[in-house]
Amino acid sequence: MSDKVKIAVDAMGGENSPNKIIEGIKISLKQSKDNFFYLYGNKEHIEKELTKNSIKKDYYEIIHTEDIISDDESPLAAAKRGNNSSMWKAIESQKENKTDIALSAGNTGALLVISRLLLKTINGIDKPALAGLWPNNFSMNVVLDLGANVECNEKNLLDFTSMGSALFKSLFKSEKPKVALLNIGLEENKGNDILKKTFSILKKNNPSNFDFQGYIEGNHIMDGNVDVIVTDGFTGNIALKTAEGTANFIIKNLKKSLNIFSIIFSYIQLKNFKKKLDPRKYNGAIFLGLQSPVVKSHGGTDAIGFAHSITMCNKIVRGDLIKKIKSHLITVDG
Amino acid sequence: MSDKVKIAVDAMGGENSPNKIIEGIKISLKQSKDNFFYLYGNKEHIEKELTKNSIKKDYYEIIHTEDIISDDESPLAAAKRGNNSSMWKAIESQKENKTDIALSAGNTGALLVISRLLLKTINGIDKPALAGLWPNNFSMNVVLDLGANVECNEKNLLDFTSMGSALFKSLFKSEKPKVALLNIGLEENKGNDILKKTFSILKKNNPSNFDFQGYIEGNHIMDGNVDVIVTDGFTGNIALKTAEGTANFIIKNLKKSLNIFSIIFSYIQLKNFKKKLDPRKYNGAIFLGLQSPVVKSHGGTDAIGFAHSITMCNKIVRGDLIKKIKSHLITVDG
Repeated sequence: MSDKVKIAVDAMGGENSPNKIIEGIKISLKQSKDNFFYLYGNKEHIEKELTKNSIKKDYYEIIHTEDIISDDESPLAAAKRGNNSSMWKAIESQKENKTDIALSAGNTGALLVISRLLLKTINGIDKPALAGLWPNNFSMNVVLDLGANVECNEKNLLDFTSMGSALFKSLFKSEKPKVALLNIGLEENKGNDILKKTFSILKKNNPSNFDFQGYIEGNHIMDGNVDVIVTDGFTGNIALKTAEGTANFIIKNLKKSLNIFSIIFSYIQLKNFKKKLDPRKYNGAIFLGLQSPVVKSHGGTDAIGFAHSITMCNKIVRGDLIKKIKSHLITVDG
Repeated sequence: MSDKVKIAVDAMGGENSPNKIIEGIKISLKQSKDNFFYLYGNKEHIEKELTKNSIKKDYYEIIHTEDIISDDESPLAAAKRGNNSSMWKAIESQKENKTDIALSAGNTGALLVISRLLLKTINGIDKPALAGLWPNNFSMNVVLDLGANVECNEKNLLDFTSMGSALFKSLFKSEKPKVALLNIGLEENKGNDILKKTFSILKKNNPSNFDFQGYIEGNHIMDGNVDVIVTDGFTGNIALKTAEGTANFIIKNLKKSLNIFSIIFSYIQLKNFKKKLDPRKYNGAIFLGLQSPVVKSHGGTDAIGFAHSITMCNKIVRGDLIKKIKSHLITVDG
């Protein structure tokens, strides 16, 4: 057990939990036995699901918690009253060095607030950020911040480039990821002052840990020519949700356009198409910048999606994310 | 002629011009004879295309111009040297009240700068904005600003709500459009200070010309529940381009997934799907807030797309856009 990756799981967070959580663990165990799960939540309910899914005792330990943070609670209210919740206890286990990483499908805002409350920020980083994976023409890329920080200065964006490239390296074993700043044009004079300052610092410092590619526009995020895309949390959240909305709109219209015969005839092709773009493959946003990593699974995902976020947790710990972030930080004088 | 809508056309702007411009006019004339075209550009080239397309002299007048503004010119350089260009002369004709509206498929930045230089801002508006049409589940909605203003304060966003609702009314004959502010959440405390201030002013003032619906998130832009979506030019540009990129990514992957047999079998269905989402139908961004309206056609569109932007010009003038904007402005004390 001791050499496995120790994942603290909030077994109660998200829709249809703990059922999907335990089923997700079952799927994950079929692919890899490299994880040990600390399951925080209602013991009785969790045990019932473990038995149903025939999961052996070698792979988990249950820590009973009385309380659950619900999805509609305000983050601050949840943080105030939630210190007996499954989410809180899971994160707390990292503080105590009992676990390597925490995973929750619960209330995102509460998870960010409680993580910041319990876990220290990495020395040199002012604001942790939420990073996610986007599909692209070749594979996937990392985009951050997706909503943790509405306002960011050039120091924050600079930290995001370091953290994002460290994450990409941990997940994909890349030597020198290509990093770009999200902007409304490619020329140096485009965008707001904070972007221009960040651009000029990066150009001047020429970071050795990643390859700074300048600006990227929204229509090229998914081209696959850049590995890490950095923006403030407001813009990143708008971009993420707009992409989601556009994808849903197109798929809905496609379904409406096809009649039953063409659906049957194109069944296998459409299945491949769906499989390639399956959002469950990209499930898991990473809260970066704290002494210990926290992963947020989509609340509405199913067991397969949750299993993908377990794989992500494993890669993050095995890829030495925290150590990489520390070695990637750019210090700027003045 | 005198009771027709007088459109000043930059016949030289955009790819494959003036060919597509004249062909676009031909398509437009088949649908409506309610426009008269003032064609600015190379007389010889334009005349050749007019003859080729058998367009009668009743519908146009050519004003020869020597110069063309190219797509790769910087807006300021273009404005400095371009006062003999087709774009400049087309906009200038509005200043002289010779025409009702100007239409160009040329350099966007140059068009914005020259328009602001030649045409006065409507009294009470600090910053003009670029508005566009987005497809949604029922029809189309207006989104602004799409990139004219990187930084906006609450006064600017407030003006955008007035201008956007006036535009929606002009185009779609709606009595009371639903207007929302683009944000990263629906709760009052979400977003940056400027959004919060704009929200509170709108809530307090309860505008009579439109129905203020609060905030909207990026994933609901295309739901069709809101008619006008307001944001700053940086965010709007990122959202627009991210939506474009996502749509291209999905369509490309769909094409790759389908084999030749299913394409043949689904031909008519896929054609309907393509037709519904045809970007040419949404072609035309409107520069709002000046004493006379200016419409920017996509540079890369074809004759059909250009014809759609002509229809848009007609609707804007017939819908009394400028008068509507003036009557919609919200004055806030203090």
